[in-house]
Amino acid sequence: MRKQHQISEKAYQASGFIGKYQDLVADVVIPWQEKILWDEAPDTEKSHAIANYINAGKVLRGEDAGDGFYGMVFQDSDVAKWIEAASFSLMNKYDPELDKELEKVIGYISAAQDKDGYLNTYFTIKDKDKRWTNLHEAHELYVAGHLIEAACANYEATGKRVLLDCMIRNMEHIYDHFITNGNPGVSGHPEIELALMKLYKITGNQHALELCSHFLNVRGTDTEYFIREADNRDWSVWGSNPRDEGDLEYRQADKPLRQLEKATGHAVRAVYLYSGMADYAIETEDEELMSSCKRLWNNITQCKMYVTGGIGSTVLGEAFTVDYDLPSDTAYAETCASVGLMFFASRMLEYDVSGEYADVMERAFYNTVLAGMALDGKTFFYVNPLEVDPGISGKAPTHKHDLPVRPKWYQCACCPPNVARLIESFGKYAYGENEDTAFCHMFAAGKVTFGNGLSLECETDYPHDMHIAYSVTGTGKIAIRIPSWSRNTEVAVDGKIITPEMIKGYMYLNVNGPVRIELHLDDAPAFIYPSSRIPKLSGMTALRRGPLVYCFEGVDNGSVKALRIDRDSSPEVASFSEELQANVLKVKALREEDSAELYSEVPPAAAPCEATAVPYYTWGNRGETEMRVWMQ
Amino acid sequence: MRKQHQISEKAYQASGFIGKYQDLVADVVIPWQEKILWDEAPDTEKSHAIANYINAGKVLRGEDAGDGFYGMVFQDSDVAKWIEAASFSLMNKYDPELDKELEKVIGYISAAQDKDGYLNTYFTIKDKDKRWTNLHEAHELYVAGHLIEAACANYEATGKRVLLDCMIRNMEHIYDHFITNGNPGVSGHPEIELALMKLYKITGNQHALELCSHFLNVRGTDTEYFIREADNRDWSVWGSNPRDEGDLEYRQADKPLRQLEKATGHAVRAVYLYSGMADYAIETEDEELMSSCKRLWNNITQCKMYVTGGIGSTVLGEAFTVDYDLPSDTAYAETCASVGLMFFASRMLEYDVSGEYADVMERAFYNTVLAGMALDGKTFFYVNPLEVDPGISGKAPTHKHDLPVRPKWYQCACCPPNVARLIESFGKYAYGENEDTAFCHMFAAGKVTFGNGLSLECETDYPHDMHIAYSVTGTGKIAIRIPSWSRNTEVAVDGKIITPEMIKGYMYLNVNGPVRIELHLDDAPAFIYPSSRIPKLSGMTALRRGPLVYCFEGVDNGSVKALRIDRDSSPEVASFSEELQANVLKVKALREEDSAELYSEVPPAAAPCEATAVPYYTWGNRGETEMRVWMQ
Repeated sequence: MRKQHQISEKAYQASGFIGKYQDLVADVVIPWQEKILWDEAPDTEKSHAIANYINAGKVLRGEDAGDGFYGMVFQDSDVAKWIEAASFSLMNKYDPELDKELEKVIGYISAAQDKDGYLNTYFTIKDKDKRWTNLHEAHELYVAGHLIEAACANYEATGKRVLLDCMIRNMEHIYDHFITNGNPGVSGHPEIELALMKLYKITGNQHALELCSHFLNVRGTDTEYFIREADNRDWSVWGSNPRDEGDLEYRQADKPLRQLEKATGHAVRAVYLYSGMADYAIETEDEELMSSCKRLWNNITQCKMYVTGGIGSTVLGEAFTVDYDLPSDTAYAETCASVGLMFFASRMLEYDVSGEYADVMERAFYNTVLAGMALDGKTFFYVNPLEVDPGISGKAPTHKHDLPVRPKWYQCACCPPNVARLIESFGKYAYGENEDTAFCHMFAAGKVTFGNGLSLECETDYPHDMHIAYSVTGTGKIAIRIPSWSRNTEVAVDGKIITPEMIKGYMYLNVNGPVRIELHLDDAPAFIYPSSRIPKLSGMTALRRGPLVYCFEGVDNGSVKALRIDRDSSPEVASFSEELQANVLKVKALREEDSAELYSEVPPAAAPCEATAVPYYTWGNRGETEMRVWMQ
Repeated sequence: MRKQHQISEKAYQASGFIGKYQDLVADVVIPWQEKILWDEAPDTEKSHAIANYINAGKVLRGEDAGDGFYGMVFQDSDVAKWIEAASFSLMNKYDPELDKELEKVIGYISAAQDKDGYLNTYFTIKDKDKRWTNLHEAHELYVAGHLIEAACANYEATGKRVLLDCMIRNMEHIYDHFITNGNPGVSGHPEIELALMKLYKITGNQHALELCSHFLNVRGTDTEYFIREADNRDWSVWGSNPRDEGDLEYRQADKPLRQLEKATGHAVRAVYLYSGMADYAIETEDEELMSSCKRLWNNITQCKMYVTGGIGSTVLGEAFTVDYDLPSDTAYAETCASVGLMFFASRMLEYDVSGEYADVMERAFYNTVLAGMALDGKTFFYVNPLEVDPGISGKAPTHKHDLPVRPKWYQCACCPPNVARLIESFGKYAYGENEDTAFCHMFAAGKVTFGNGLSLECETDYPHDMHIAYSVTGTGKIAIRIPSWSRNTEVAVDGKIITPEMIKGYMYLNVNGPVRIELHLDDAPAFIYPSSRIPKLSGMTALRRGPLVYCFEGVDNGSVKALRIDRDSSPEVASFSEELQANVLKVKALREEDSAELYSEVPPAAAPCEATAVPYYTWGNRGETEMRVWMQ
């Protein structure tokens, strides 16, 4: 039932906006993360992640463990995500130094693998006997998943099998533990499921598919497993109690996956799991499981998603909460969760080429994912609020997590490398293919070669300019998504305006190249109105142009809280900001007079003014200042 | 520097609205609470509070402790607050059965007092050796404070000295521990300070004043005390760590009290402490300490108070947070904190007869304090949100504390008896006096006899009707507050309209009775506008009539979230609800069409309608339904 699949990142050579971001990641982010992993970055959180591998290798060779293990129980995954990002980067722009560096790090990882295939520095260094005794908290399968993903990317990029073979051995070890030896349990943090599907697709290894099937089929069936496991051991990582109310729902393990109705629990775990479910369902034509995915998708995008594509609105457990609970100021909206939402969207697109998936994928990318990283690639947001007030955000007890400026790194450093790997693999999400059709899901400048014989060059200043031109060569079918937000779209083929055949938000064309396809998408800024079902957004309006949601910052506007947008006016592009490298919008507004009196019975005086909005992804790049997406 | 002081509750015989509430408390609340304390109430939280006293007495007599101690470490205070409420109730309506019942309970308390004066069932039953080793958490001085207050009220009501003498002995025990023997430390939960001042005023006991002075002067000077204390013991009540960031600020013990600038920490502790500070400052003419009180008052009422008079906006620690952080839906706004705000206001009024204090006292009473109890006196709110959505409130992880309907009782049962004692002592807050003037701070129907020879009968249906008539006899001065919200007030003396002399919101009249003073306060419903400094209230409006803040409930309006109030219209009284026994308001509004689409670019269709508002204190009396104070 697969309608199309991602292209290889090798098939896409980026230019334009995406090209610049890939260069930034290659030139700044990947080297910076490498320094951090090696503990060579000044004034930042200690990582120790590579040292952990080196020390685990020593332990296995019977040597002294040196300075032992440091970091989160899943510290290994930071290295995995970096390898994955760096490998994608090699496909975009080959760098022999980086290739060599990857070889070196992969060497340390291989040396940290036990003879039986086991590979996890936390347990190898700290206590071998505790292996597999804490699936609830200890992230062993999560780390394995990230390493498998890294191995697949490294193999795809370089053809080298060192990490791939290492992770096949590790997968076989896990297979033996759970299937051959019949040990019970599933991972407290899903991730391995989608990784096993990647491994299966690359290697055809049936054990990978079988193991994925096992984890998906077992999940949610034995609701006492985590309790028994906890009762059988005398240690814990964080003291999580599997008897806590909602613990299983939090881990998406409360009921069999085919019965899930609503997205629950830790948002990143959720979308990683749902992505793995979709991968498996598509591969095995499991319609029942796919229906589950569709229900979960609908619940997320129709009841639990911010206008910025952020998901997981509460800091308490970094989790989904009840429907329509979408606060702007206390939002969690973890960067990783939006990366995961893009994963899920991309899988759903494989099953059903429909604009509803690509629209969300684009919304998440251009807003929350990009906002996760500063414009200079040097600082990162883990949490992506839609409203910041420097007097309250980061200060009030309920707002400690909502920081007004990006820190350099995090002790739990999942988000920065997640952004890096996403950007470096953008081609996979932007373009797809099947035997006879080339799919353009997102507008990404650069050259693409498809398997069906078509190739194209996309020229555009998107997302700043809504004109996109494809020069296509070869003969075949091409399907280009027209975003649902584009209310007036002009399509021209070789200069002649056409009315294309549209199916589920995509225009389908038979191409006999060379041919030039041009799109003029709607470039008018537009107001967005929330459903009245979202209590926190009563009477609010947001602003959008193209795929970019805009926000209002104090640095441009003074007190943003005192601004009232004139919804009867038409917002306009005011200028292109050199500093932000983005279009700035202006909109008519009223400014309420400041009042020190908390409550007054005199309507506040208000004077007309112009309000300035900048793309949400550029917020927080000019110091600590107020910010709002939703305006009264 | 005392300008006036509270009257005795005996001097006020209530009728009208307050009289009905006092009857409700006497007939329903006090007997119900008594049943709970005796563990005779069905289907509710177990209390065991009187059994604790009985068991502590057994321990002291060397008998078996029976079923031992049960409940919170401060369970004793539930009995104290009930005694206080019941004693006030005796002053309002003498009930020999209740008097006898009080004697019986007081007998158990006396029997639970150790020979050295120590009195606390938790430590007496559980471990005598742990006395005074955990001021940080264990509430020993807090419980003593509530018992002292109960003793003062019982003595005032009945002239009986059993509990008073018991608590004088207890106070002397505490005096010996902290002053004679020089043991360091202050209470983690203030309360004893204001209680000691009450004891001093009633008995003239200098040790009570000295002990209060000691606790106030020492507080905030030794910032390592709680840490040393914790290091010196091997047990804890809740595992609170005095090394936690902000712990001292949380307990108002981070700096000397004369240096405090902002209200911080646990809101109830804060206002109890500030009340004690004001009592002491007034008594000893300590202007420096009084300046502190004034700064704290200003900070609370100008930056940290809900329009309903609720304070302490965050559930995390039941605490004050940063200025202007006043969310409606996640509000904590504990009932006890507003009771405490009335205490503080009443003290500030003693120092300075100014409407600013009485206005806040009235705001807190008619809105948050009354909302804390159901109209039938049978269920109670601990938390008083300004917005409730049954799909989210009580369900989302960040909204678990905001319940849409009142429970019967709480494990931590501080609020219900606090409301009861406040209502039964309403006269003390409504009326004051000094040698030559009678003060009317709040409009309370009934008869009052003042020390200056004046007596009055107040006839009014306030807060439902804004006409208040005083029939005054005797000769002297009277000062009647004109609320700041009354923009048009008509005053007539013996039918003749006058322009009275106004000082700080009070009109002062020389009376030569009998004379009839009539007030017609402004009875027009009015909109309230929030300062733009409150991020959560951007674009919102609330509604008020007289002292009553109104709210909109789903049961009257359907979806309240979809309503947009027409601010250019004039809200009107629509009817008097028999069910709620209160005026219902109507206001023109627009109703947005429901949209299942989370975000739309089409402005929502809206149809004109009438919206219905009911007094905030009556909310949640008609089942689980939406509720909002602030409307778009």
